[in-house]
Amino acid sequence: MKSFLTLKSVDEVLSLVRTFEPLAEEIVPLDACAGRYLARDWSAPENLPGFDRSTVDGYAVRARDVFGAQEGSPALLECVGECPMGRAPEFSLASGQTARIFTGGMLPEGADCVVMVEYSRPAGGNLVELIRTQAPGDHVLERDEDAAEGCALLPAGRRLRPQEVGLLAALGQTDVPVRRRPRVAIVSTGDEVVPTERKPLPGQVRDVNSHSLAALCAAAGAQVRMAGLVRDDMAKLEATVRDALGWADVVLLSGGSSAGMRDHTVDIFLSMPESELLAHGAAISPGKPFILARSGGVCLMGLPGHVSSALVCARVFLAPLLRHLQGGEEPVTPGVRAVLARAVASAQGRRDFIRVRLARSEQGWVADPVTAPSGLISGLVTADALVVCPENSEGLYAGQEVFAELLQ
Amino acid sequence: MKSFLTLKSVDEVLSLVRTFEPLAEEIVPLDACAGRYLARDWSAPENLPGFDRSTVDGYAVRARDVFGAQEGSPALLECVGECPMGRAPEFSLASGQTARIFTGGMLPEGADCVVMVEYSRPAGGNLVELIRTQAPGDHVLERDEDAAEGCALLPAGRRLRPQEVGLLAALGQTDVPVRRRPRVAIVSTGDEVVPTERKPLPGQVRDVNSHSLAALCAAAGAQVRMAGLVRDDMAKLEATVRDALGWADVVLLSGGSSAGMRDHTVDIFLSMPESELLAHGAAISPGKPFILARSGGVCLMGLPGHVSSALVCARVFLAPLLRHLQGGEEPVTPGVRAVLARAVASAQGRRDFIRVRLARSEQGWVADPVTAPSGLISGLVTADALVVCPENSEGLYAGQEVFAELLQ
Repeated sequence: MKSFLTLKSVDEVLSLVRTFEPLAEEIVPLDACAGRYLARDWSAPENLPGFDRSTVDGYAVRARDVFGAQEGSPALLECVGECPMGRAPEFSLASGQTARIFTGGMLPEGADCVVMVEYSRPAGGNLVELIRTQAPGDHVLERDEDAAEGCALLPAGRRLRPQEVGLLAALGQTDVPVRRRPRVAIVSTGDEVVPTERKPLPGQVRDVNSHSLAALCAAAGAQVRMAGLVRDDMAKLEATVRDALGWADVVLLSGGSSAGMRDHTVDIFLSMPESELLAHGAAISPGKPFILARSGGVCLMGLPGHVSSALVCARVFLAPLLRHLQGGEEPVTPGVRAVLARAVASAQGRRDFIRVRLARSEQGWVADPVTAPSGLISGLVTADALVVCPENSEGLYAGQEVFAELLQ
Repeated sequence: MKSFLTLKSVDEVLSLVRTFEPLAEEIVPLDACAGRYLARDWSAPENLPGFDRSTVDGYAVRARDVFGAQEGSPALLECVGECPMGRAPEFSLASGQTARIFTGGMLPEGADCVVMVEYSRPAGGNLVELIRTQAPGDHVLERDEDAAEGCALLPAGRRLRPQEVGLLAALGQTDVPVRRRPRVAIVSTGDEVVPTERKPLPGQVRDVNSHSLAALCAAAGAQVRMAGLVRDDMAKLEATVRDALGWADVVLLSGGSSAGMRDHTVDIFLSMPESELLAHGAAISPGKPFILARSGGVCLMGLPGHVSSALVCARVFLAPLLRHLQGGEEPVTPGVRAVLARAVASAQGRRDFIRVRLARSEQGWVADPVTAPSGLISGLVTADALVVCPENSEGLYAGQEVFAELLQ
């Protein structure tokens, strides 16, 4: 009996998600790489900053020439010039010599540290008194201190944040190898569902999932194509999914909340070339009627029709798939520690994702469970975060400390 | 003496940031509104779902007709038809009657609850036995349960997540009023700075801040224009900033790490029309030489030249400015609780942002401070999060529990 759901655990489904091949590499310009995932390990092609650089305004010296210098016993040095900004000094320092230098300037040959201008005073002619002892390296960024040529800087799979973009810029990496964006085709279904722009008649509702899932996919780095809103009709749905295979890396089929449609989804997925059913049902709430299959390298995913279930399920399974396809590292899940305001019941063997509102109290965050059926979208709009109730638990108690994963 | 820094506290600067007017409203299509900020309070234009809807497959009934029904004493009802999906049933239920219904279907007139199909059995002809007692409303989403016409749903300033997009879709809001994206012009300066695509000569470094700041601005919803890499030359810088005023809502000037350039930045900002200096220096580390000014309604911001300082400062002051310009609500800061691996010293009266790496331990997250000068970009690349050491503290101790704000 095909409709019998052999529920896979959330972790089993996530393992199956990782059986899909990450997408091909592509080269994007530096200013378009933020938020993408690096395709290869990346090492420093050269030293950074590439020369010894002053971090202050002052005087470049040899440390031994100012050894023991202080207010009462200054070191008297000959100032032989000023280090230009943006060029190498054309002189070098001999013993007893110094040169004026500014923040970011290149140290002249012979200098090994900088005395801050606050600790200098003119002593007539080109002589200067320095009243501070320094060690070699003081107030200097060494030529390979930011990055040494050849050293590993960024691993493949790193999500490129503004600071990684900065590091790539600093080393002249204007072409950045990243993994291609996943292409997701979204098919919405349901005889009662009408396009959003249409005024529903009695008994009809507007398409929600196409739009909310598209937003989630886009935020996860995917390109989205709305493959259509199709009636609960096997032949039409099959043709729509088959069409989508030509373009998509992932075909999402959402809706079909009626019992029969769940089987339809499986039948449609299995009618695709080189198909394999990976999961029919997941031990998750909301989201139990989740379906995962493949057609060759294309992932076929059936999400529940209930609007909140579809979105929670997408967050738990689809977002990690899209990250995996881009070769992304596991991220730190953003969230806050909170105290649960009310007890919630769960079932053993199932992972529950409890929608909560967060409110500040004197003791920190309080997470108040949202009670709304998963067929409503408003419950998820009210929620700030999700709290996980794990498989080995029958619920969470009021006052329990929990981790609330932010719904961003 | 202009170069004297009267440091403003971080909170004072953030108050000044909020003195800028939020940007005008614009209408965007539903599928382009995710991540934007809603410009007006939004109420339900109609009831959602708009009709009483079954949440299960089963039989629509009047609760009183199945009152007390159970295995040994079934209620016997006449099945008068099947509720179609996507249309209003053309019949109503009289006492003693029932109708077949599917998940999402519209209840016929007269029905007030649904008995799940599991609790039904055929009884010959069009008769059916139901063996479950129900209360009115059981397995029914009421016509206004997701949203009641006229009720407040989303406040102005709400950032539109996938679920808000879903709610807008459900209620047919295909045109969404949001605040315009802020336009940020980025001017980079420094005699030693060369464009990223150029191979630096000895004494030169590539432009980092333009690229990392552009990535940060884009992630915060801004449109970015690279207004140019300008030498430390008052006249040229002034002309570049003046040009940018014609387009930008925010002009960022980054660099000029030499002492003189900080004054130049103030002078340039004050030479703009209707200018006012708001902050010259902030009690923050890294980022002390921060400058905030206005020219009419345009925000002028001077960020430190040091690459990590510039980015931390942008995160603390620029990201909230960009959110404020879009009318955005204060978000929950994503992060994790962690234990500090090592003590860090700070100074009273200054807010320190300590870059940390996060590692998992058996007790939870451990935050290990990154020690790298703020002139290096690699230190921020290594970091996963920032830990705040507040103004009233002289440091944090090893083993202290801290909140690590994720650097996303």
